[in-house]
Amino acid sequence: MSLLDSVNSPEDLKKLSVEQLQTLCSQIRKYMIECCAKNPGHLGASLGTVELTVALHYVYNTPNDKIVWDVGHQAYTHKIITGRRELFKTNRKYKGISGFPKISESDYDAFGTGHSSTSISAALGMAVASQLTSRDEKVIAIIGDGALTGGLAFEGLNNAGSMKADILVIVNDNEISIDHGSGGMHEYLVKISTSPTYNKVKEKVWDSFGPSKLRKFIQRFHSSTKAAIINTGSIFESLGFRYFGIIDGHNIEELITTLSNLKEISGPKLLHIKTTKGKGYKPAEENQIVWHAPGKFDPLTGERVIKNSPVSRYQDVFGRTLLELARKNEKIVAITPAMATGCGIDIMGKEIPERTFDVGIAEQHAVTFSAGLASSGMLPVCNIYSSFMQRAFDSVIHDVALQNLKVVFCLDRSGLVGEDGATHHGVFDMSCFRPIPNIAIASPADERELRNLLYSSTQPDYPTIIIRYPRGNGNGAGWENEPFEKIPFGTGRKLRDGDQIALLSIGPISAKAAEAAKLAHEKGISVAHYDIRFLKPIDNSIIDEVFSKFDKIITIEDGSISGGLYGTICEMASMKKKDCKIKGIGIPDRFIEQGTVSELYEECGMSAEKIFEKVVDFFEEKVWNV
Amino acid sequence: MSLLDSVNSPEDLKKLSVEQLQTLCSQIRKYMIECCAKNPGHLGASLGTVELTVALHYVYNTPNDKIVWDVGHQAYTHKIITGRRELFKTNRKYKGISGFPKISESDYDAFGTGHSSTSISAALGMAVASQLTSRDEKVIAIIGDGALTGGLAFEGLNNAGSMKADILVIVNDNEISIDHGSGGMHEYLVKISTSPTYNKVKEKVWDSFGPSKLRKFIQRFHSSTKAAIINTGSIFESLGFRYFGIIDGHNIEELITTLSNLKEISGPKLLHIKTTKGKGYKPAEENQIVWHAPGKFDPLTGERVIKNSPVSRYQDVFGRTLLELARKNEKIVAITPAMATGCGIDIMGKEIPERTFDVGIAEQHAVTFSAGLASSGMLPVCNIYSSFMQRAFDSVIHDVALQNLKVVFCLDRSGLVGEDGATHHGVFDMSCFRPIPNIAIASPADERELRNLLYSSTQPDYPTIIIRYPRGNGNGAGWENEPFEKIPFGTGRKLRDGDQIALLSIGPISAKAAEAAKLAHEKGISVAHYDIRFLKPIDNSIIDEVFSKFDKIITIEDGSISGGLYGTICEMASMKKKDCKIKGIGIPDRFIEQGTVSELYEECGMSAEKIFEKVVDFFEEKVWNV
Repeated sequence: MSLLDSVNSPEDLKKLSVEQLQTLCSQIRKYMIECCAKNPGHLGASLGTVELTVALHYVYNTPNDKIVWDVGHQAYTHKIITGRRELFKTNRKYKGISGFPKISESDYDAFGTGHSSTSISAALGMAVASQLTSRDEKVIAIIGDGALTGGLAFEGLNNAGSMKADILVIVNDNEISIDHGSGGMHEYLVKISTSPTYNKVKEKVWDSFGPSKLRKFIQRFHSSTKAAIINTGSIFESLGFRYFGIIDGHNIEELITTLSNLKEISGPKLLHIKTTKGKGYKPAEENQIVWHAPGKFDPLTGERVIKNSPVSRYQDVFGRTLLELARKNEKIVAITPAMATGCGIDIMGKEIPERTFDVGIAEQHAVTFSAGLASSGMLPVCNIYSSFMQRAFDSVIHDVALQNLKVVFCLDRSGLVGEDGATHHGVFDMSCFRPIPNIAIASPADERELRNLLYSSTQPDYPTIIIRYPRGNGNGAGWENEPFEKIPFGTGRKLRDGDQIALLSIGPISAKAAEAAKLAHEKGISVAHYDIRFLKPIDNSIIDEVFSKFDKIITIEDGSISGGLYGTICEMASMKKKDCKIKGIGIPDRFIEQGTVSELYEECGMSAEKIFEKVVDFFEEKVWNV
Repeated sequence: MSLLDSVNSPEDLKKLSVEQLQTLCSQIRKYMIECCAKNPGHLGASLGTVELTVALHYVYNTPNDKIVWDVGHQAYTHKIITGRRELFKTNRKYKGISGFPKISESDYDAFGTGHSSTSISAALGMAVASQLTSRDEKVIAIIGDGALTGGLAFEGLNNAGSMKADILVIVNDNEISIDHGSGGMHEYLVKISTSPTYNKVKEKVWDSFGPSKLRKFIQRFHSSTKAAIINTGSIFESLGFRYFGIIDGHNIEELITTLSNLKEISGPKLLHIKTTKGKGYKPAEENQIVWHAPGKFDPLTGERVIKNSPVSRYQDVFGRTLLELARKNEKIVAITPAMATGCGIDIMGKEIPERTFDVGIAEQHAVTFSAGLASSGMLPVCNIYSSFMQRAFDSVIHDVALQNLKVVFCLDRSGLVGEDGATHHGVFDMSCFRPIPNIAIASPADERELRNLLYSSTQPDYPTIIIRYPRGNGNGAGWENEPFEKIPFGTGRKLRDGDQIALLSIGPISAKAAEAAKLAHEKGISVAHYDIRFLKPIDNSIIDEVFSKFDKIITIEDGSISGGLYGTICEMASMKKKDCKIKGIGIPDRFIEQGTVSELYEECGMSAEKIFEKVVDFFEEKVWNV
C-alpha cells in the first residue's frame, strides 16, 4: 500500500515524518497526473501546490481551521487528501466532483470558488466571524499572483490590512496566470523575488537563524534588517499586512516550519511563496500555458491527445476574423482580461501587439479602459468570458452604455460550458443585459454568422453590441476566405418554413432546434424555424410574421429561461395584443453543475431529441410548462 | 464685472496673473456657495478642488488635453469655468445640467461619471489612444483617496503602471469620502502625509530647489533623497508610477508650477495633493459629512434649511429596525461599502460598532466579505445602493447565490432617485437579479412593510433576499414601537377589490397605483389592486386569482420595464396558458436624466394621474403599448 492510500483525511498526515511527507507529495503528483491524463483537468496549477497543500493540512487543524483557495484550479491535492482520493477520478464529470472547491461537497471546502480574487474577502469574513464568536479558528487564503491583480483582491487586502482579524494570505507566486502575467503588481513581484538586495538579506536571515527560529527572529528584528526585508513587501506592508517571504513553495520542511511559526502570530499576515506551475512534470513545466488545462495525454511521454477536427472553433473564427478586420482598420484595438489564448485574441496580438491589450485579471478595468479608448476615437473589441463579464456589469452600464460609447463586446464561453460547471456557465448574459439601454445583443448561429456579425459590428451604423457565442467547435459552416457579408442590424432569418408551430431560437443552439424541426416534419408536424439572431433589438417583421401565422410558439435559448428570449417574446405578445401559447426552452432557475455539454443539454431538455419531444407534446397539448 | 464674469472658457484663465487666479478662486467659491444654497448640490467636494481645477485648466490645453474626474462630485468649478457659469444655476435640475461630468454636455467633459474609481482606467484608454494615433494630448485623472479603495482603481493603476502611456493621476487626498475614510490605503495615505521623515525630506527638497526647479531636480535626484521621497509613495512606485508630492492643493502657485513641470515628464506619474473638503466655507470645513450634500442653506450664516417631516425616511426605518434586531440576535452583522450615514447603518454602528462594518468604497468586497461571514455562521445584513450593487453583480451570483449562503441584501436608493440622475437611478436591480437562482427579491410598499420584511428576512425560514426600497420619505405608515409581524415568505396582498381591471404593483410606487385605482373607481372603473411584494418567488395564489378573474392586467414598477414585474407576469401568463391583455408601466428602455422624483415619474408615466390615465385608456382599449 502506498502512503497515499493510507491518507483518508488530514489527520492521517499528522502521523507522517517530513521524509514521508515528501514521498507522499511524489505519490500525489503521480496520481494526479495519471487521473488527469485520462480525465482532463487543470493540471498545471495543482502540480504547483502539492507541497503547500500538504503542509497546510499538516500544520493547521482543518476543517476547523479554514483554507480558502482562490480560483480553485490549484486545489486538486486538497481534494485528494481530504477524503476524495477515489472520487477524484470523477473530477469535473457529470454527477462527479467539481473541479473547484465547493461548500456542499466537503467540510474541508471552506468556500466555493471558480472566479478569481475572492479568497481574501471571504477569508476576512471568516476571520471576523471567528473573532466575534471567540472561536479559535485560523483562516488562510491562498491566492495566485495572477488573481492578485483583480480589484476584488485589492479591496480585500485594503480592508483586511486595517482590521485586527487573524488572517494569513499566502501569495502563490508562479509568475503566470493562464497566460503570462502582466501589470504593475506582476512586475513588482518579479522585481522583489529577483532583487539581489532582497536575496542577500533573505539568505542572511535564513542562514543565521534557520527557519525554525523565524518567529523569535521576527520579534527581535533589527530595525535596519527589518526595513530591508519589509521594503521587499512594501505594497503589502503599506496596506497593513506583515510581509514574510519569499520562501520556496516546493520545500515542504521550510513550509511547515514557516507556517507553524506564522500560526502563532496574530493580525493580518502575508506569506509570499514561489512555486513552479506544472512542477514535477517536465512537459507541464516546459509549456505552462498549454499545460494549464492540457486535455487528455499520455502520462509517460507527455504526448497530448489532440483531436484534429475539420471544424473550426469559435475562438479561431473570432481571432482570425479580428486580425483580418484590424489589418484594414487602424482604429480597431483588442482588449481581454487575461484570456488572450483562450479567446483567440492572441492571434491579433502576434501580428499587431501595439493594438492588442491583455490587461490581466481585471474585467472591470478591461471594460472601462475600452470605454476610454472609445471616447478617444478608437474602436475597441473587448473579449470577456460570459460568466466573468458579470464582474464588469456596472462598467458596461455606467462607462459604456450610459455614455453611448461604441464598444464591441464579444462574450466567449456563453451558454453551458461543460466541465467547468456552475461557476463558469455563461447563462445570465442575455437576461441581465437586455434591460440596459443603448446596447444591442446578438448571438451567431454558426461560424459564418460570427464572422459576419463581428465584421458588421465594426461598421459605423452598428452601436455598442454584445456578441455571445460558446466555447469550442462550431457546426462546420464555411467561413474562411469568404467575403464579408453585412448583416442588416437587428434582423433575424427564417431557416425553415412551416405552418403549425414556430420555433424561435438564438445562437448555436439553433442547430439543435433545426434538428428538432426536421424530426417534427418527419413526424408530420409542420414546424417553422427562425433564427432570431438579435435578442435586442429584436426583428419586428419576424415577430409580426410569427404572431400573425402561429398560435403556438416555442423559444429556444442557451441561457436562463427568465428574461431572455422567452421573456422578450412573452412581453412582445402582450404588447402586440397577441393571444398565443408560448413555451420556453432554456436553462431552468437553478444552478447547473458540471458535465459534458451534451449531458447538460440533456438535463436541461435542450438536446435535439428533447426539443423534438417538447414540440410533439406542445403540438398535442400534453405539456405546457418547461 | 467680477473676474469670474470674464471667464467664459479656460482660454480666459490664461490671461490672468497668479494673484488674479487667487481672486478668481475666491469668486468661484462664493458663486458656488450661493448657487448651492438655493439649489442643493454636492458642495463639500467641489469647495476642495477650486484651486486644483483652475490650475489644471490654466496649465493644460483643454479640451484637447483631457481631464477625467473620478466620481464627479468635485467638478463644479470645472463646469463653471468651462462655459457653464450661468447654466450652473440649473445644476441637477430637470432639463438642467447634470451634477456630474457628462460627455454629451460639454467637450470639456472628457468622460462621464457618477460612480467611483473609474477615472484611471478611462484615462489610460485615452492616453493609449493618443499614443496610437500620435496625437499630442495629455490625460489627467483626478481621484479622491476614498475612490482609490475601489478595486477598479487598483486594476487601473496596476495596468497603467506597466504601460508607457503618458498619464498623470492626481490623488486628491482629503481623508474623507462621504463618511470618514477606512482601510489600509487610507491609513497609508494618512501615515505618509503625517510622517515627520517625509515632511523633513519634502521641506528640504522644496526649500532648497523651489517648486519651479522641480523638473530639473527630478532629473538629478541624489539616490538617497530619491529613495526617501519615493518610499513615501511606495505603493504607487511599486506599481510602476513615479510618485510626486505631497503638495498643498490649495496653493495655486505651487499647483501651477508642479503641474507645468509634470507635464513635461513622460510615462505614468502620480501626484499626491492634500486638500480640505469644504475648504473656504467654515460650516462645511467643520462638519464635512453633513456638508457633503447639505441641502438648502443660508449662505451667510451656514444655517441649513431642515424640513422636519412627520414622516420617516426609509433610511431611518432600516437603521433603527436593524439595531433593534441586532440587539436581540448576536449573529447579525451589518456591512456597507462607504454609505454608513446615507443608508442608516451608522445607527447600529454607534451602539454595536464591533458588528458594524463600513468597508470603504468596495462593493464587491462588501458582498464577498458578507459571504465569508455567512459561511461561518453569522447573519450578514449588507446595505448597498441599488446602482452601486451593479458593481457586485458577480459577487452576489458567485459568492452568495451559488453557494446558497444566507445574506440579507438591502438595496437602498432603488428606483428613480431624482437629482443624482442617470448614473444613480436604481432601476435595473429587479430585472438583473430575477434570473439568478437561490435569491428572493422583495420590495416593501411602505415603512411598516420594510420593517417587517427586514424582521422576516432575519428569520431562519427566509433564504437570501434582496429588499429594495427608495431614498427618502415613506408615505407615513406607522412603524415605530409596533410589534414585529412575520410576513409569510413569497406572499403579496390585496389592497383593493374590483372586477374589471387588475393593477399589480411592487414597492412604494404602490401608493401611486392606489391613488390611480381610487380615481378609476370614482370614474366607475372597477379596479382591483394587489401589492405583489415579492417579485420572486411570486405569489402564485394571487397570480391564479388575477388570471382567473381578469382579462386586463396592468403592472406597475419603479424599475426597468424589461424583465422585471411586467416580464414576470407576461411569462406567467404564457406558462399558465392565460390569454389576457397585459400592460406594463415602468421605466422605459432609455437612460433617465436628473430631476425631482415627481418630474421623473411624470416623464415616465408613473405619477398617479398618469397611471390613472393609462387605466382609463386601457379600459377603453385606446392604447396598448407603454
